[in-house]
Amino acid sequence: MRTIFWEDDAVRLVDQTKLPDRFEILTCRTVEELGEAIRTLAVRGAPALEAAGGYGVALATFEREFENGEELKMHVKERAEYLASTRPTAVNLFVGIERVVKRALEGRNVDEIRKFALNEAQKIADEDVERNMKMGQIGADLFENGDSILTICNTGSLATVYWGTALGVIRSAVRNGVELKVFACETRPLNQGSRLTAWELMRDGIDVTLIADSMAGIVMQRGMVNKVIVGADRIVRDAVFNKIGTYTLSVLAKEHGIPFYVAAPKTTFDWNSKASDVVVEERNREELVYCHTKCRKTLIAPENVRVYNPAFDSTPLENVTAIITEHGIIYPPYSKNVPEILNLS
Amino acid sequence: MRTIFWEDDAVRLVDQTKLPDRFEILTCRTVEELGEAIRTLAVRGAPALEAAGGYGVALATFEREFENGEELKMHVKERAEYLASTRPTAVNLFVGIERVVKRALEGRNVDEIRKFALNEAQKIADEDVERNMKMGQIGADLFENGDSILTICNTGSLATVYWGTALGVIRSAVRNGVELKVFACETRPLNQGSRLTAWELMRDGIDVTLIADSMAGIVMQRGMVNKVIVGADRIVRDAVFNKIGTYTLSVLAKEHGIPFYVAAPKTTFDWNSKASDVVVEERNREELVYCHTKCRKTLIAPENVRVYNPAFDSTPLENVTAIITEHGIIYPPYSKNVPEILNLS
Repeated sequence: MRTIFWEDDAVRLVDQTKLPDRFEILTCRTVEELGEAIRTLAVRGAPALEAAGGYGVALATFEREFENGEELKMHVKERAEYLASTRPTAVNLFVGIERVVKRALEGRNVDEIRKFALNEAQKIADEDVERNMKMGQIGADLFENGDSILTICNTGSLATVYWGTALGVIRSAVRNGVELKVFACETRPLNQGSRLTAWELMRDGIDVTLIADSMAGIVMQRGMVNKVIVGADRIVRDAVFNKIGTYTLSVLAKEHGIPFYVAAPKTTFDWNSKASDVVVEERNREELVYCHTKCRKTLIAPENVRVYNPAFDSTPLENVTAIITEHGIIYPPYSKNVPEILNLS
Repeated sequence: MRTIFWEDDAVRLVDQTKLPDRFEILTCRTVEELGEAIRTLAVRGAPALEAAGGYGVALATFEREFENGEELKMHVKERAEYLASTRPTAVNLFVGIERVVKRALEGRNVDEIRKFALNEAQKIADEDVERNMKMGQIGADLFENGDSILTICNTGSLATVYWGTALGVIRSAVRNGVELKVFACETRPLNQGSRLTAWELMRDGIDVTLIADSMAGIVMQRGMVNKVIVGADRIVRDAVFNKIGTYTLSVLAKEHGIPFYVAAPKTTFDWNSKASDVVVEERNREELVYCHTKCRKTLIAPENVRVYNPAFDSTPLENVTAIITEHGIIYPPYSKNVPEILNLS
């Protein structure tokens, strides 16, 4: 099932704030409702947000009746602005919104605007699924029976529209009949690994064991994992930016001679930048001072302690064995092979 | 102030289950009350438990009136057995109990038994403080102005009677006028780093920054820390057993050319064993499925997920720059220098 989809003139999505307690589908019949879902992180993950932005614009065209095309176009523009304000730093959300607005404004009447908008939104979602399935199929060849794979954060269906990036590769391998095990790092401080990845894999019947992030060393030292696969938020000329903790996994993998794979679509590459150009987002100190879920907040540190809470870290490309993309598996030297395989200018 | 001490015929201790919410001294006037404090982890940490065991036996001699020495000795033996049952795997607890029972039984009447027991218990506590102060003073020389030190778990006053082991060294350096900063790993899954270490250091006015365990890589990569110091649960011929996550820190330190120090008293050395002889305790799966404090329990993973939860890991001695003991700083080759400096046969 898709994480976000269109049904009966409404956007439906898996409410990630309820997981792992409950699995619930949230129905958004107005842009306001969808905006609230985005704001509260009921839907999250860059590709899922791109689809949410696109579907949100489509939803705007259906949420009431309109006299004519001009009135609808005014409404679309106004609602698009509101939608973009719900997560002001989510670049992919804006990409989805802009793409569907552009297409919608080409419509000559209400029916055409609605049709164009919805088709474009569906296309965004479908493209993500197609890309992930392709990436999964290509990457699956790297795995074989008996593999035990370490991963971090959530890179599965919940972060995308469907299938996932790094988890998508694992899913494809399992679908191809490969017998494998997964170790999921809980991924502090927001526990996307324990709350989402463990849940997704259990739901799919894939063998998963949860560990604390600090246990990555012991599972490698004891030969309990033999491969690592992670996703990426941004890949620059010399480094992979991904969830905090990824760099540590890459150093441990190097120490133990374990392959370290990154799975990411072409859209993740920012080949004109270097690691030193990127400013790593520091997140709210409360994430480390409290343990949060939707309805509870548990104090786990002195309330006024100083905190350093970077959201991402950068893994030098020297530590990466190969990058799995929908255009093929890219091996070093990356300076030559990335532009070649991805056809970057 | 000491973590555990004797006052007005009662054992008083810092109630660690209340931290960091509240700082409370728990008063135990009966062995039953102290046993409950041990069982619920109001007092924890190997050296603190050794003192608790000793004080518990002393407490037994004061908790009511006795007709004669024989009656009191019967009572001491019976209460000692109960005390030992409150944490059946805590070796140091038994050591403290046995030492005071042995001395108490040498008394010829009620007064003498009481005096012998209390003196011996005080001696255990004092010896721990003395050892820690000595270790701190010796280790302090390794630090200099501007150092930024990474540590894990709680190795401070709360884990000992006073001052601490690895944190004791940091305290001694600060007392000597060294200006330094500390980065404390939160130490999943029980968060001794965020709950206890951050609290202790803030209370002492030592500059501390809390990070998630997964951030150890980025703080080294960015030059934000230049030294690591950890405690030890057991040091064998080829490895240091300590809180899960220590091994990962040692690999990261090696990768970044950062000194990695272990601070531990002579009693921690088990020089007749090898790493392969040691069975690492696996703890309750609930520790990773829920986030716990005294009164709250927050679900952070699927309730029925499989969990791997080792309490300790082993760091090969090759990764250790030096071991700080109360008998001196021990450098490699350890096979030669450990027996020599510690005077082990």
